[in-house]
Amino acid sequence: MSDKIPIIAENRVSANAKKYIDIVAKFVEEKCIPADAVFAAQIGEGASRWDHHPKIVDDLKIEAKKLGLWNMFLPKGHYKESPGFTNLEYGLMAEHLGKSRVASEACNCAAPDTGNMEVLAKYGTDEQKKQWLKPLMDGEIRSAFLMTEPDIASSDATNIKLSMVKDGNEWVLNGDKWWSSGAGDPRCKVYIVMAKSDPGHKDVYQQQSVILVPANAPGITINRMLSVYGYDDAPHGHGHLTFKNVRVPANNIVLGPGRGFEIIQGRLGPGRIHHAMRSIGAAERALDWMLMRINDPSKTPFGKQLKEQGVILEWVAKSRLEIDASRLIVLNAAIQIDNGGAKTALKEIAEAKILVPTMALTVIDRAIQAFGGAGVCQDTPLASMWANIRTLRLADGPDEVHLHQMGRNENKRGGHATKVILAQKETSRQLFEYYGINAAATQLGGLIKTRAKL
Amino acid sequence: MSDKIPIIAENRVSANAKKYIDIVAKFVEEKCIPADAVFAAQIGEGASRWDHHPKIVDDLKIEAKKLGLWNMFLPKGHYKESPGFTNLEYGLMAEHLGKSRVASEACNCAAPDTGNMEVLAKYGTDEQKKQWLKPLMDGEIRSAFLMTEPDIASSDATNIKLSMVKDGNEWVLNGDKWWSSGAGDPRCKVYIVMAKSDPGHKDVYQQQSVILVPANAPGITINRMLSVYGYDDAPHGHGHLTFKNVRVPANNIVLGPGRGFEIIQGRLGPGRIHHAMRSIGAAERALDWMLMRINDPSKTPFGKQLKEQGVILEWVAKSRLEIDASRLIVLNAAIQIDNGGAKTALKEIAEAKILVPTMALTVIDRAIQAFGGAGVCQDTPLASMWANIRTLRLADGPDEVHLHQMGRNENKRGGHATKVILAQKETSRQLFEYYGINAAATQLGGLIKTRAKL
Amino acid sequence: MSDKIPIIAENRVSANAKKYIDIVAKFVEEKCIPADAVFAAQIGEGASRWDHHPKIVDDLKIEAKKLGLWNMFLPKGHYKESPGFTNLEYGLMAEHLGKSRVASEACNCAAPDTGNMEVLAKYGTDEQKKQWLKPLMDGEIRSAFLMTEPDIASSDATNIKLSMVKDGNEWVLNGDKWWSSGAGDPRCKVYIVMAKSDPGHKDVYQQQSVILVPANAPGITINRMLSVYGYDDAPHGHGHLTFKNVRVPANNIVLGPGRGFEIIQGRLGPGRIHHAMRSIGAAERALDWMLMRINDPSKTPFGKQLKEQGVILEWVAKSRLEIDASRLIVLNAAIQIDNGGAKTALKEIAEAKILVPTMALTVIDRAIQAFGGAGVCQDTPLASMWANIRTLRLADGPDEVHLHQMGRNENKRGGHATKVILAQKETSRQLFEYYGINAAATQLGGLIKTRAKL
Amino acid sequence: MSDKIPIIAENRVSANAKKYIDIVAKFVEEKCIPADAVFAAQIGEGASRWDHHPKIVDDLKIEAKKLGLWNMFLPKGHYKESPGFTNLEYGLMAEHLGKSRVASEACNCAAPDTGNMEVLAKYGTDEQKKQWLKPLMDGEIRSAFLMTEPDIASSDATNIKLSMVKDGNEWVLNGDKWWSSGAGDPRCKVYIVMAKSDPGHKDVYQQQSVILVPANAPGITINRMLSVYGYDDAPHGHGHLTFKNVRVPANNIVLGPGRGFEIIQGRLGPGRIHHAMRSIGAAERALDWMLMRINDPSKTPFGKQLKEQGVILEWVAKSRLEIDASRLIVLNAAIQIDNGGAKTALKEIAEAKILVPTMALTVIDRAIQAFGGAGVCQDTPLASMWANIRTLRLADGPDEVHLHQMGRNENKRGGHATKVILAQKETSRQLFEYYGINAAATQLGGLIKTRAKL
Repeated sequence: MSDKIPIIAENRVSANAKKYIDIVAKFVEEKCIPADAVFAAQIGEGASRWDHHPKIVDDLKIEAKKLGLWNMFLPKGHYKESPGFTNLEYGLMAEHLGKSRVASEACNCAAPDTGNMEVLAKYGTDEQKKQWLKPLMDGEIRSAFLMTEPDIASSDATNIKLSMVKDGNEWVLNGDKWWSSGAGDPRCKVYIVMAKSDPGHKDVYQQQSVILVPANAPGITINRMLSVYGYDDAPHGHGHLTFKNVRVPANNIVLGPGRGFEIIQGRLGPGRIHHAMRSIGAAERALDWMLMRINDPSKTPFGKQLKEQGVILEWVAKSRLEIDASRLIVLNAAIQIDNGGAKTALKEIAEAKILVPTMALTVIDRAIQAFGGAGVCQDTPLASMWANIRTLRLADGPDEVHLHQMGRNENKRGGHATKVILAQKETSRQLFEYYGINAAATQLGGLIKTRAKL
Repeated sequence: MSDKIPIIAENRVSANAKKYIDIVAKFVEEKCIPADAVFAAQIGEGASRWDHHPKIVDDLKIEAKKLGLWNMFLPKGHYKESPGFTNLEYGLMAEHLGKSRVASEACNCAAPDTGNMEVLAKYGTDEQKKQWLKPLMDGEIRSAFLMTEPDIASSDATNIKLSMVKDGNEWVLNGDKWWSSGAGDPRCKVYIVMAKSDPGHKDVYQQQSVILVPANAPGITINRMLSVYGYDDAPHGHGHLTFKNVRVPANNIVLGPGRGFEIIQGRLGPGRIHHAMRSIGAAERALDWMLMRINDPSKTPFGKQLKEQGVILEWVAKSRLEIDASRLIVLNAAIQIDNGGAKTALKEIAEAKILVPTMALTVIDRAIQAFGGAGVCQDTPLASMWANIRTLRLADGPDEVHLHQMGRNENKRGGHATKVILAQKETSRQLFEYYGINAAATQLGGLIKTRAKL
Repeated sequence: MSDKIPIIAENRVSANAKKYIDIVAKFVEEKCIPADAVFAAQIGEGASRWDHHPKIVDDLKIEAKKLGLWNMFLPKGHYKESPGFTNLEYGLMAEHLGKSRVASEACNCAAPDTGNMEVLAKYGTDEQKKQWLKPLMDGEIRSAFLMTEPDIASSDATNIKLSMVKDGNEWVLNGDKWWSSGAGDPRCKVYIVMAKSDPGHKDVYQQQSVILVPANAPGITINRMLSVYGYDDAPHGHGHLTFKNVRVPANNIVLGPGRGFEIIQGRLGPGRIHHAMRSIGAAERALDWMLMRINDPSKTPFGKQLKEQGVILEWVAKSRLEIDASRLIVLNAAIQIDNGGAKTALKEIAEAKILVPTMALTVIDRAIQAFGGAGVCQDTPLASMWANIRTLRLADGPDEVHLHQMGRNENKRGGHATKVILAQKETSRQLFEYYGINAAATQLGGLIKTRAKL
Repeated sequence: MSDKIPIIAENRVSANAKKYIDIVAKFVEEKCIPADAVFAAQIGEGASRWDHHPKIVDDLKIEAKKLGLWNMFLPKGHYKESPGFTNLEYGLMAEHLGKSRVASEACNCAAPDTGNMEVLAKYGTDEQKKQWLKPLMDGEIRSAFLMTEPDIASSDATNIKLSMVKDGNEWVLNGDKWWSSGAGDPRCKVYIVMAKSDPGHKDVYQQQSVILVPANAPGITINRMLSVYGYDDAPHGHGHLTFKNVRVPANNIVLGPGRGFEIIQGRLGPGRIHHAMRSIGAAERALDWMLMRINDPSKTPFGKQLKEQGVILEWVAKSRLEIDASRLIVLNAAIQIDNGGAKTALKEIAEAKILVPTMALTVIDRAIQAFGGAGVCQDTPLASMWANIRTLRLADGPDEVHLHQMGRNENKRGGHATKVILAQKETSRQLFEYYGINAAATQLGGLIKTRAKL
């Protein structure tokens, strides 16, 4: 709820946004979370999991629209279609959306559509917008973003191999993509594909292009759906697709040949904030469930309720603290994006990207442990939330790539830090002289600039 | 520097405060840090470490006063003597002070004087203020705060035993105190003592009083000074004192008999912010030293500089991230104190108290490890910073006490969380009916309210 | 392989056991692991997953029997049916079995049958042995062990509620059980059930009995199968069962009324060794896969293979070290059981129970992270191994219960430790006198017995 | 005591060794630990700390010799002077020695003398043995090992720079050494120096020589003593020395020019076992102190003794478990050295080197936290043990160097692991054919060799 906004950020949230945060919170708590079990029931078993969409999602969409909860992710000022929230404000809403399986989709704020809509709104031609952006904005179709490939190290996107060759007025695509999330949904009508259009270009960051491919284009095969731990995430799903001589009109290209990196980089900032805030919402929900469990009067192992166990209380306290610290990191990044754009917020976004998933996994795992057997099975939302968030330590590059990059960036101040410290040692040396201290007698060694070379 | 204030807090810092933050930063970097080695040299060896104060501190005090850097800790609005900074603003200055051994004292912002001055300013009589607060504010004398005792579990202050018995117009004190920080300093002229004045009072939180005791009162013996890891922290030091029939005038009592807890609780909030921000400054300085070390071209084990090692770059990145997250937690707590007072900020202060020391120890220990032998000895500031901050996991109660308390407070929402979740299950059950789903057939079990008792 | 046995244990392993360890290792590597994918394919999709058993398991059983790999778990000396291996020796075999989904069953060494066979062999009547033990030993039927219940804190088995009431020459059972592993298998013919037969008995450890229940007894309903992070573990599975007026002949009771705890306690020691060693095998296999991944020449993010990354090499090294340390802990426990029986090995078994699952999860998670997307999906064995082992931190009581118990046991030496330390202080005091040292002047305080009370 | 030897190793310890383990244990517990406080008192304050040796050490030496506790470290079979214990057996004794500051020296088993004696016994000429080994073996003199240098990355010993130039019948040494442990002791009479004798040699491992330098050789200056977290470790100490035209007779060289690496490598194996076992002893002693603290009836914060706190009991349990696992790792390494020599035990020794110090630091830090203020000061042995062991994460190369090396060694099996896994996939593919399964339809992807390239 809006009265829980950390005070450090509270004065940047408009009264209108606070009102909508409360509406989102109530919608999620009272409508979406209860709908999750219905979704699971309606999706069914076996092959039928992939051929329809649970009815309850459509009903929720109607309700969400009535409440004014639609496309809140589109940032204020950037898009005319935007309902007018800042990244900070939508971030606070996304936290609530993250508590439910169906909430983001119900409000047309689900990945990967959100990022795809941003791409289309920002870079699409009028024609592309009309054909794809409009129905996406209206929630009539869904989309997938096809970047990762199975046989390369995709954490480095220069490695992608799916080829895209111009042939007359068409591009011809050949290759494999996987982790194409959303490709399982029968409503998924368009793929935004990153492909290698100019493998010989001397700048490895200009070899790629982004192109729009209709999901039903001849030559595309969905080989199989990938599981995440044992979950198939139907009907959304994660596809492994093969492109064989898939032909796409030339004007389906976005921005133009060689501009793939430019497009995907613009796509990443806000999306990472959304994922992070949703994960924080999941962590909050896990903590709520843990609290329920440890206060359950029917569970008194060895004569004590879990809430009386010091170890469990430490889990609660650490969870509270770790969630709160993570949230501040994300909100700070969102504000930086709001103020200066994603390019000025690389450090802040990276901090959120790295910190949040590991934090959320830790909190959820504690809740699972508190529940025992109920925690790992379908009787709580915990195990599926854990599996879902585990992928965020890999998606858009594994943690280690981001840590490495962040370490290199931070180390850029190494020269300056060295200079300052050496100047301080030199000042110490001068002070020793001023005060008549024999530096050699002090045993202080490396703290003072006693020798030329230091 | 003020341009490094996290954007999330930046709009709450006045232009004047930013100006002074920059002055503090420059003063610490250029004057105080180089003075630390001089301080170490001037303090000398053996018994003489306790009988004088390094001259350079007095010289720095003169300089600090000229720069307007004096008593910045006294919060705006609360004290007429205050230079007018909020807790947030002073916190940002304290980060810089924490980088140097001598900086806080140079600006008359050193513990325990700061907390003691707050006590006197808030609760002292005019007479007490004239006698003790005035010279403390002027930096002419120093003070100690005597609470902890050697033979009890002092993390629970109701346990303190030093007795205080009324005898005519005097109080007579008997007992032991230790970890009396600052008691070693020849300038320390007054002890603020928490003692048991009414051991039989039925409310255990009204058995204690706070009384002002001149350091030279007959009957007080400094048995010995305690070391912290091998450091004696001379001349400040940490004393183990015995009180034997120490007689103090009755009007030296603060606020009145039985009001000890009331006084010490008021003392804790801002002080914890100060400690936390100083620790963050220490962590930043450790990171700077680590950067210097890993960029040192003369250190190339196995043909690579440390900055080229992925493991080291992860240390750098994690340090950056952990410092940043901790700082946001502390600033958020400071703002909450500014807005609603320390009593409304218990959770936020506890988060800062718990999170920061462990974070800073981790960062400093990484820097030590990067330095190798130089890291554990006197050639870097790292080992002594580590030892100093290690005590913060114990001072004012060990981490575990705060975690326990925080866990209990968080768990107060357990009943509400349970109610919400059960209502969600009931709504799910109703939705199953509405959509004609056979709940029993779904295997969803505990996610739905299928049975009365759930 | 037997040449990898840690040298510290190697001289306790007979030449014959070494020979069979090598046979097991080869059988697992060459036959069972390749069969895992076939098992997954043969088990199929949807409801059919529960109505048949993959053919390849039967083929492997035939092969295993030919190789002499059958019922190796039955410890030497305890059972006439035993092939003659010690717990240490079988433990070393179990490590290899743990690398494959199907290997344990192929050798008739799968849980829960192993523990159930031990119960029957140790406590069963001739009639019970003939009816159930014989076909279990022959691998013709399978079994389940029904202890855990859904609505209680089952980590404390005194809480179990499923009631068992004598009615004439029958016992009548009513109540719920869950996490009944193996109950999904169409070959599962008998349940070993822990039930409350005497709820009013003054000794809470004598209120329970163990009784043998045919799986097809009227009144038993398998409500549903529980998933583990999305995996259903078909056809074995984890059932949630309801007993409604289930009638069982009186002589199906094991040992006699009120002896349930006696039976289940005897069941736990060796089983924990088996689980632990299998988990170590899984960790070894995860490490092998990680090695494959980091040496894959087609995966060179940012121009380097993963094996050239220092962070990854630390993962490899730590994994090696943590696996090795854990193995020694388990082997030490196995030897203690071999030498003095499980009752003398409580500490050692607890150490294995606590240490191994967390270690294996850590190693497997590192491998998953190294693989990226391939790690969380069906393309590696990693995600399913992780989910499987995650349950071991809960099964037979959560880690926290075992840590608590172990802490209490270790603390039993607290009085002795105190006595020794106080005696040392007293000796110090005497030595101070002997050497003419003034203790009070030394500042050593608590290291010397200077005062009576210390 | 010998009855606490882990059962896994117990059958390799001779009856005689067990007898002496008990003698050592009793000597340490009853004589050495109480002597530690006397040592601290006798060493005194200020400059006098470096000019004498506490009398009690000499008295203990006499006692130790009487008990037959002398030079136990010299391994059986390798040296005629050896009392006949294996590395395993002496390791078990070293655990006890590690509990006391003075015990190792009292038994003439203190570093760096032990390693130096091994060097002299193994490589020394008769003349060198007579001059230096004899008085070292008799405990009449002490020695230092000078390898590390201040201005290089000494973790890579090829970097050492102190030069050693032949001039007639003498070598002339110039350069700096630091962390010369023991150089502060007035009894330290000989330095074993690693120097660069042939900087142009094409094999960087043959540029160094080891030479024996009398401590009183003209041209040697002890610049200063290095502290370790504030501790000076007097009179032993850690020196920073300068060599200026120090002339040493040519026949003081050990083994011959260019053989420095050969010598220091032979020196490292057993020494690492000794350090590791002593650290385990320190951890055990810390645990004992923690048990004393948590059972202290006078310390009852918030109405409970610490032993009743679940969090504290987890600390106890984890400490027990971590110590036990570490001990097994070290004993396994010792046995490997006994069986095949240190060269066959590189992995096992590295595991001990990496695992033990971090483990011991963790256990000691928990004890410190349990004690609160008493833990960080001189009232317990904890803080000084912590500082001492912290250096072991750096000495002989930082953990990271050993982890890196161990990772590389483990990764040597990467090719074999890959081959095995690919063969398993190929077998799966064949089994799919055999059983008539359509691999493409199974979605199993990377688990089966479906494509040539896999």
